[in-house]
Amino acid sequence: MNNTIETILNHRSIRSFTDQLLSSEEIHTLVESAQAASTSSYVQAYSIIGVSDQDKKRELSVLAGNQPYVEHNGHLFVFCADLYRHKALAEQKGEDITELLENTEMFMVSIIDAALAAQNMSIAAESMGLGICYIGGIRNELDKVTKVLETPDHVLPLFGLVVGHPANTSGKKPRLPKQAVYHENVYDSSEENFRKNMNEYDQTISNYYKERTNGQRVETWSDQILQFMKQKPRTYLNQYVKDKGFNKQ
Amino acid sequence: MNNTIETILNHRSIRSFTDQLLSSEEIHTLVESAQAASTSSYVQAYSIIGVSDQDKKRELSVLAGNQPYVEHNGHLFVFCADLYRHKALAEQKGEDITELLENTEMFMVSIIDAALAAQNMSIAAESMGLGICYIGGIRNELDKVTKVLETPDHVLPLFGLVVGHPANTSGKKPRLPKQAVYHENVYDSSEENFRKNMNEYDQTISNYYKERTNGQRVETWSDQILQFMKQKPRTYLNQYVKDKGFNKQ
Repeated sequence: MNNTIETILNHRSIRSFTDQLLSSEEIHTLVESAQAASTSSYVQAYSIIGVSDQDKKRELSVLAGNQPYVEHNGHLFVFCADLYRHKALAEQKGEDITELLENTEMFMVSIIDAALAAQNMSIAAESMGLGICYIGGIRNELDKVTKVLETPDHVLPLFGLVVGHPANTSGKKPRLPKQAVYHENVYDSSEENFRKNMNEYDQTISNYYKERTNGQRVETWSDQILQFMKQKPRTYLNQYVKDKGFNKQ
Repeated sequence: MNNTIETILNHRSIRSFTDQLLSSEEIHTLVESAQAASTSSYVQAYSIIGVSDQDKKRELSVLAGNQPYVEHNGHLFVFCADLYRHKALAEQKGEDITELLENTEMFMVSIIDAALAAQNMSIAAESMGLGICYIGGIRNELDKVTKVLETPDHVLPLFGLVVGHPANTSGKKPRLPKQAVYHENVYDSSEENFRKNMNEYDQTISNYYKERTNGQRVETWSDQILQFMKQKPRTYLNQYVKDKGFNKQ
């Protein structure tokens, strides 16, 4: 196993950082790494907003559900789907491509582009000994987030990524059994396999929590997923992304 | 610069592979690397279909726009947004969470999860000396792709990823200037900066093509983007993803 794969397999989200800020050079390397990712048809349909202003970090931390590590970290990056450049370029040439930018394909492309770039940044950061955590919580109240970051229409903040020097480490959470995620040639939707995989995984997760909490926490993955889904996550987004010019047709 | 960052910065898409297939062990390492990526709220909302069946590879290659490297490679992976497991788990417990699974937030979450996993796989592959190329072309005709891969509702093939031993290498395509992609504290939408960045980049890209084609190709990035957009990419997707149970509300 080489160093890179070791870094990848050793991933765990870090939610507590020392006060040490990233240097400009580190930020530069991370952004350069993000930009090196593949991009669909060369569109590069994303932007990254680096947030160093402590007031803005505090505001975003509250909006993301009072997560202190959104405020206290080495640097906060916000990854955005971005079709603003494409629209502006077209306008310069007297073309109106708004209708195309608004379609679901371009919504998907811009999300995928942003995520590929973000994961490159994550791996680069971890290879430098830094810790990372994705912040989906910024999607709680995107209307306020877009005000803090002054993003125009056709730019949609998707998630944050906090990076910093780990203050303490965390456990590596077990993933679904490989055979539940990896299918050969066709998607295996047989109920028997499904139940077998889920039972095995529920047992793994229950044991994982039991061991780490002296038996205080025993819930399974199924329990967690159902609990999460019952919170009706962010139902306003369907309309919100349309208002910002994405996913309309 | 460490090895991992070197690998990341050295990325270029490879579109020509030797006949050598990936070993089971290599495939295992790649899938394990993919699974190690971060996942929103632990939902792990994606699946990977590994395609080794040569007939299926040929079919997918035609559907993806007759790209020969979709047929000839070391292995073809198809990454899917997947909320099927979550629906089935809920059904087992007598809960109906269909409405929640159908919202735009879960559509975004499943796309992001799949893309983070895919980029982990890409970096892992490149660190092993393998080449990769993303295949967005499978979104040309998703109705046929879902038949080939037998994906049920709540599973949406997003893109392919071909991996293999490079037969020949390709150039590293210059990315947008850093200051066009990376913003500090607020999104910079000033027209002056925008024009400056775009002019600089258009010049870079035009020179890049000129040098590589002995002056035959001179187009700028702006030219390419407008040309691409005018093709009206995949406008059927808005309805199609809804038919598969995603992004409905």
